[in-house]
Amino acid sequence: MTGVHPTMLILLRHGQSQWNASNRFTGWYDCDLTPKGEAEARAGGSALAEAGIRPDVVHTSVQTRAIRTAELALAEMCRSWVPVKRHWRLNERHYGDLTGLDKTDARKTHGEEQLHAWRRGYRTPPPPIADDNPWNPNHDPRYAHLPPEVIPRSECLADVVERLLPYWYDAVIPDLRSGLTVLISAHGNSLRALAKHLDRIDDDTIAELNIPTGMPLVYELGPDMTPVEAETTLARSLDPVAATEAAATVAKQAG
Amino acid sequence: MTGVHPTMLILLRHGQSQWNASNRFTGWYDCDLTPKGEAEARAGGSALAEAGIRPDVVHTSVQTRAIRTAELALAEMCRSWVPVKRHWRLNERHYGDLTGLDKTDARKTHGEEQLHAWRRGYRTPPPPIADDNPWNPNHDPRYAHLPPEVIPRSECLADVVERLLPYWYDAVIPDLRSGLTVLISAHGNSLRALAKHLDRIDDDTIAELNIPTGMPLVYELGPDMTPVEAETTLARSLDPVAATEAAATVAKQAG
Repeated sequence: MTGVHPTMLILLRHGQSQWNASNRFTGWYDCDLTPKGEAEARAGGSALAEAGIRPDVVHTSVQTRAIRTAELALAEMCRSWVPVKRHWRLNERHYGDLTGLDKTDARKTHGEEQLHAWRRGYRTPPPPIADDNPWNPNHDPRYAHLPPEVIPRSECLADVVERLLPYWYDAVIPDLRSGLTVLISAHGNSLRALAKHLDRIDDDTIAELNIPTGMPLVYELGPDMTPVEAETTLARSLDPVAATEAAATVAKQAG
Repeated sequence: MTGVHPTMLILLRHGQSQWNASNRFTGWYDCDLTPKGEAEARAGGSALAEAGIRPDVVHTSVQTRAIRTAELALAEMCRSWVPVKRHWRLNERHYGDLTGLDKTDARKTHGEEQLHAWRRGYRTPPPPIADDNPWNPNHDPRYAHLPPEVIPRSECLADVVERLLPYWYDAVIPDLRSGLTVLISAHGNSLRALAKHLDRIDDDTIAELNIPTGMPLVYELGPDMTPVEAETTLARSLDPVAATEAAATVAKQAG
């Protein structure tokens, strides 16, 4: 150990949600964790505690599943008291009019190839969400203060990168620069967007990255706020072997 | 209804904690809710939801029992996403060297009269907490950033008023002035201190006020940030009859 405290960033993907369990496209629809997802969140907190990593501040999306994941992980670390900030820019990718669809039904309706393009094409957003889609969050009070032009109607991963980075630069980096260890509790695709930026993953290769649920990824950042060591994203895990296996399972479920 | 949105403040005392249940002086010791306390927190959230009262922002102490009460109440309202701010100035009264003592033992050791004076005398702090009191929070990381002269070693209710009001003026009032409905999730004595200020309760009469657990008190405030209607504190409850009964139970337990 040198005398210099490394700047640490932890990414935590929320545990299983109700719609993960029922195989539906979720996006901006707000559902809660399942009991399994709650256990995953607690396990994420335990893993950090055992590694002696102590978040000083937490950033979450405004979606219940990421908020509760942070609450459960922090409780496990006896750190419920740390400040928490929430922002829609950390939300899951907006899945457009796929929102609410059963993934198997969607495959039948739209075909395997089209679905794969929507899911993994870096610049291919699904069709915009219909006003009368019953899962459209356009009347959700958590977005009531946002100008309508800011609220996405569908997003590809490139759109997520674009709307997430302002929050990274304006809200997260100032906390890191203050010497705080930052935990971001968010979603499969918002964390892929951030990992793409941090690990300089190109637009094609990012399609292959899956983030495991409830398994913290830990970055050490240099003064320029990029990783001290060039590594794959999954090698940032506290247990890279388990993370790689879990990511493969996520990929299979998505397939 | 006029066109003017009333300024609303909600006070919520945390549900039963582990040390409430085991009859010990708690103060700044950090213990969690019991299952009964969790149910009380949820009931507080339900009561607000049923009354159509929607907090826009939450302020809590840095103590787990108040933090989790807010989390559980908000989840019940489907409002886990509202911003939350935490501050030690909303903490429970510091019980000095009574911290950790069984209340019955304390009565035997110190005598009924002395104990009553420490508990209810507005300007009578208990003896300062000993460095080696096993429940002394002086190594608790949540206070590590505070200059030592700021951390109390014991407090009477007058001390709580003095350290709480700067937070009321500097952090809560700006939110209220922005038109936000504010929920404060805190403690029996920090909420007594705030109610004393808001309801202009004199130094003697405040001894008689007990705040029921898990039952929201709702204030409508005028432009000068004082209550629109002069009322007793318990009349602010959504169910004043039940609140008065619950307060009487609290008083008996305290006796």
